[in-house]
Amino acid sequence: MAQKPSIPKGTRDFGPVEMARRNYIFDTIRSVFRTCGYTQIETPSMENLSTLLGKYGDEGDKLLFRILNSGEAFADIDFDAFRTEEGINSKALSLKVCEKGLRYDLTVPFARFVVQHQNELSFPFKRFQIQPVWRADRPQKGRYREFYQCDVDVCGSRSQLLELELIQIIDSVFRKLGVRVKIKINNRKVLTGLAEACGFPDKVVDITVAIDKLDKIGLEAVKEEMLGKGLTPEAVSVLEPILLLQGSTAEKIATLRTALACSPEGLKGIDELEELFGFIEGSGISTETELDLSLARGLNYYTGAIFEVKALDWEIGSICGGGRYDNLTGIFGLPDMSGVGVSFGADRIYDVLTGLDKYPEGLAAGSTVLFANMGPAEIAYILPVVSALREKGISAEIYPDAAKLKKQFDYADRKGIRFLSITGGDEMQSGSVQIKNLASGEQRAFAKTDIDGIAAFLV
Amino acid sequence: MAQKPSIPKGTRDFGPVEMARRNYIFDTIRSVFRTCGYTQIETPSMENLSTLLGKYGDEGDKLLFRILNSGEAFADIDFDAFRTEEGINSKALSLKVCEKGLRYDLTVPFARFVVQHQNELSFPFKRFQIQPVWRADRPQKGRYREFYQCDVDVCGSRSQLLELELIQIIDSVFRKLGVRVKIKINNRKVLTGLAEACGFPDKVVDITVAIDKLDKIGLEAVKEEMLGKGLTPEAVSVLEPILLLQGSTAEKIATLRTALACSPEGLKGIDELEELFGFIEGSGISTETELDLSLARGLNYYTGAIFEVKALDWEIGSICGGGRYDNLTGIFGLPDMSGVGVSFGADRIYDVLTGLDKYPEGLAAGSTVLFANMGPAEIAYILPVVSALREKGISAEIYPDAAKLKKQFDYADRKGIRFLSITGGDEMQSGSVQIKNLASGEQRAFAKTDIDGIAAFLV
Repeated sequence: MAQKPSIPKGTRDFGPVEMARRNYIFDTIRSVFRTCGYTQIETPSMENLSTLLGKYGDEGDKLLFRILNSGEAFADIDFDAFRTEEGINSKALSLKVCEKGLRYDLTVPFARFVVQHQNELSFPFKRFQIQPVWRADRPQKGRYREFYQCDVDVCGSRSQLLELELIQIIDSVFRKLGVRVKIKINNRKVLTGLAEACGFPDKVVDITVAIDKLDKIGLEAVKEEMLGKGLTPEAVSVLEPILLLQGSTAEKIATLRTALACSPEGLKGIDELEELFGFIEGSGISTETELDLSLARGLNYYTGAIFEVKALDWEIGSICGGGRYDNLTGIFGLPDMSGVGVSFGADRIYDVLTGLDKYPEGLAAGSTVLFANMGPAEIAYILPVVSALREKGISAEIYPDAAKLKKQFDYADRKGIRFLSITGGDEMQSGSVQIKNLASGEQRAFAKTDIDGIAAFLV
Repeated sequence: MAQKPSIPKGTRDFGPVEMARRNYIFDTIRSVFRTCGYTQIETPSMENLSTLLGKYGDEGDKLLFRILNSGEAFADIDFDAFRTEEGINSKALSLKVCEKGLRYDLTVPFARFVVQHQNELSFPFKRFQIQPVWRADRPQKGRYREFYQCDVDVCGSRSQLLELELIQIIDSVFRKLGVRVKIKINNRKVLTGLAEACGFPDKVVDITVAIDKLDKIGLEAVKEEMLGKGLTPEAVSVLEPILLLQGSTAEKIATLRTALACSPEGLKGIDELEELFGFIEGSGISTETELDLSLARGLNYYTGAIFEVKALDWEIGSICGGGRYDNLTGIFGLPDMSGVGVSFGADRIYDVLTGLDKYPEGLAAGSTVLFANMGPAEIAYILPVVSALREKGISAEIYPDAAKLKKQFDYADRKGIRFLSITGGDEMQSGSVQIKNLASGEQRAFAKTDIDGIAAFLV
């Protein structure tokens, strides 16, 4: 019996329409990356598990897709050695039979790449990378087990001109895509300063993780979470007004400078923020930027500026985010390699563009012109015209079968083909070609050899 | 201690230079596919193992990369049930703990896609697909465990105009890439006819597999292999002259028509070959085509025309190949869906272009122009110029740090950046920008606002 075909849950097929839309997004992002001097790299889908494990926390380790060793993976395994009182130790056994895992993000492979190829690269190294990643998360609306990331990073310089450049990239990408956004900016050193100012310098992670949830769960729940993590009510009350800070960027910075006067790290963060907002002001970026102290971002490797981008006209989580990290490559043996980068969330950007109906028209059309199939002699007559148009970069096709015209029409219609050519005995007699604009109804005749004329009509 | 970074054997990192070259190949191929009306699809990296198993023969099943089920994969496994006298039954156990596998090629996922989405597609369905595939083969020179395939297929029509179109695509791709090739053509029905003519109609597979090796192992070894498969010396001697057939295509076809007179299937194949070579002659294809009866191609799903492309100026296996299949989707429940397609071997094409030094110049350059960093005031002065150039699609960057000029020069040099701009107090005073062509040494001054003038100089 034939199998009923299906695909693994959490994965997707992309048909012609979805692909055309995704390519439009990727092409736009890629072209902006390139105008700013970033070059593309790709890393393997599989990494050694030793490269991946321990980089994403315990939860991340569980979400790695592991690849069974090839050959007789279980041949020499002593299963009894993996039995515990609670049953089989799946974690230990899977480490034994799986040496490789699928890429979980593009950041760790990038760090691995930089260290491994450090002698071949020119620093500061500006790279972008657009590839799928895999996570064994529970699939749900908008969350997939295979999805693309679009990352752009520079490493090898501490200059905040690079933060500015990334903000310019964000500005340019979303302007080209026609999506209004706001860029939220903060600095991890300021968050460290907050922890120091409230008397719990060792709770930076707990505090930032709690602050990160402000948008989602609200102020009261964040305060409760902080108390639950061991902060005193006094400490929480020190943090509260700073989280609710209002006013212009200059006013916020002035208030912070007073509040964090006791924290050298915090003051350094404020200096960085001040410099970056100065750059932004001088650069003519039209996208709204905002200093948002509640922005923390969950990942612990950030050490300086952090960013997050929200769509203004569509309700969805952040569609781009990133920041400065000072020691990403340290784990692979290359210390003091500061870097900064952002990641564009292709799936969410897709949802925003779809929701706002912002795709250019005709994106997924198969061809510009269809030549109807009227029989072998007519096809032989038309073949050189089709070849010549294709040489000019015009997408042209011949219906492969001499089917009823209705069927051929329907094909053109369903594929969004805008021009139709029907060639019969009259045209062959006169050495001409008829072409009809299906939208306007306009029909014109051209000499068969007038490829330039035909091409001009098809634009 | 820091980990020494490495990647799994048989996989590769692609740095900026390799990626630029690969993108050049993919972009060329993609643009030709598009001018012929093919639209892109993508399928998930993971397929259910039930979709993949049994489609590539026993050897293929062994080469599938399997993905360990997520969660506690081994928790409920009764290992004793998998013990045999020869030890653990790895095959059965891996089926229990792995439900998914990595894509082995793009053909089976395409067939699965067509069946699963048949109600959303317009037929004839013309698609291309460029994605990596994974095989647990023993890695060796030129053979990788992860590599890209570029497939183009149509399904839903038996018209050989589609075979012609694929040959036109091959012709166009290699002309654009500047690689001289020969396209070998044969027809599986003719091979069936040969089996019938020599009296062993049930040995088609054995005979075609043996014939397929003619190029590699030579005539004597092929004859021996046929004898080994149970053919009689008389049968082998019937086949021999046909394999060594010489002369023009018309002469070969005439000889075949006599030799295969007793085989209706063989005669049908000859009719198809005659029609296809007629199309080719009328289409003005400049690439050499050849009817090669020793061309068989290993895959058993081909039923009509088969193709293979050889580079003329570089010694390497076939760089593109494919053919007509009549029942690829049958296994997934959709019978009688004839299709035809070819696959471009990106890695081998890469090797050929590298060997023949056929890449366009400046492919991997990071930017067109580098603005040296002379300090904060100069940067503030130059920022609007850089933004304006980028808006025009010109790749421009600022060196992020105010480093020694020598260092900034070296950076431009290593990245192949062709223009350098150094802005100092004089330029700021006069509102100008200096730009130097690093290759020719020509230096020109522009008003800071003359973006069009600067852009024209940078072309």
